[in-house]
Amino acid sequence: MQELKKKILQEGRVLSDQVLKVDSFLNHQVDPQLMVGIGKEFSARIHEGYATENKKVTKILTIESSGIPAALTTGLELDVPVIFARKKKSLTMTDENYVSQVYSFTKEETNDITVSKKFLDADEHVYIIDDFLAHGAAAHGLIDIVQQAGATIAGIGIIIEKSFQDGGQKLRDLGYPVHSLARIKSLRDGIVEFMEDEHS
Amino acid sequence: MQELKKKILQEGRVLSDQVLKVDSFLNHQVDPQLMVGIGKEFSARIHEGYATENKKVTKILTIESSGIPAALTTGLELDVPVIFARKKKSLTMTDENYVSQVYSFTKEETNDITVSKKFLDADEHVYIIDDFLAHGAAAHGLIDIVQQAGATIAGIGIIIEKSFQDGGQKLRDLGYPVHSLARIKSLRDGIVEFMEDEHS
Repeated sequence: MQELKKKILQEGRVLSDQVLKVDSFLNHQVDPQLMVGIGKEFSARIHEGYATENKKVTKILTIESSGIPAALTTGLELDVPVIFARKKKSLTMTDENYVSQVYSFTKEETNDITVSKKFLDADEHVYIIDDFLAHGAAAHGLIDIVQQAGATIAGIGIIIEKSFQDGGQKLRDLGYPVHSLARIKSLRDGIVEFMEDEHS
Repeated sequence: MQELKKKILQEGRVLSDQVLKVDSFLNHQVDPQLMVGIGKEFSARIHEGYATENKKVTKILTIESSGIPAALTTGLELDVPVIFARKKKSLTMTDENYVSQVYSFTKEETNDITVSKKFLDADEHVYIIDDFLAHGAAAHGLIDIVQQAGATIAGIGIIIEKSFQDGGQKLRDLGYPVHSLARIKSLRDGIVEFMEDEHS
């Protein structure tokens, strides 16, 4: 997605060979127009999949907090509800829940992630969205929750994939369609280098 | 806002005299179309204020996670960036930050909330959004951050105000415009009773 890549080059900051900071438009300050563009792009990639899959997405699933804006704009495009998995149980979460564990490399902690059972049925066809894909920890936690519900996975939409880490390849090896809007090949020497991609 | 009140009556669950659960459309599962309506409504109330204030909103500020969807749709309407204050410092938050403390009654814990200094300047005119207003703890934390930046506050947009708690009155007494889209007078006996409101 050209608009996103341009924004990454203009505003992203390479903090190390592993870490790209995009907090001016993606995960602290958010550019709403860019998020609408991202929602349209995920929606387009999902619709491409319908040709072979013939099964419509019924829900978007993300994880708080940084996945929420793109999940919302995608839900708007597809006209389906959005669920965000909670990282911390609220006292008002009194229902039965699906729970999985996710390790955060940027926060160095393991969180239980929780989705109320009443929002995921076995007949749902779920599209998973997250802002970053690195080792794939969050994506695997969300997949686990969809599987606990007995529901199916339509695909995984990622805003920025760090392709030099193994999360994306592992998900593709498992057979999931992974739609990454910007795939980063390397952050070496403080320079963002993108993968060549048929969707660029 | 009629559409919101209808949704609260249809799907909200009164857990006690103090607690209303709206996780089917607001803060766990999210209804994207309703969020667009909420963004339009906040935008309309902000525009009403321009007549007397003559100063345009330059940024939306909310707090992760449940305020994000409405903040995003309002930012989209006004075409301004959205900031969500972080509750937990990420290892990639290496810049200078504004920090305030917020006590969560539903999670029974105090969180530092953090906004990077580079996204809030003294010349910003900030509109604060949150999903619930009860005691006003989150709103006061966000106000504190705007004040630390030396910026001004255009108003405070709240999706659901529990008017039987004192947060809303305290904010109005301080002179802030508070735009609550549904004001709940009472949750007694398991029944949601709304305030009569000129905006109903």
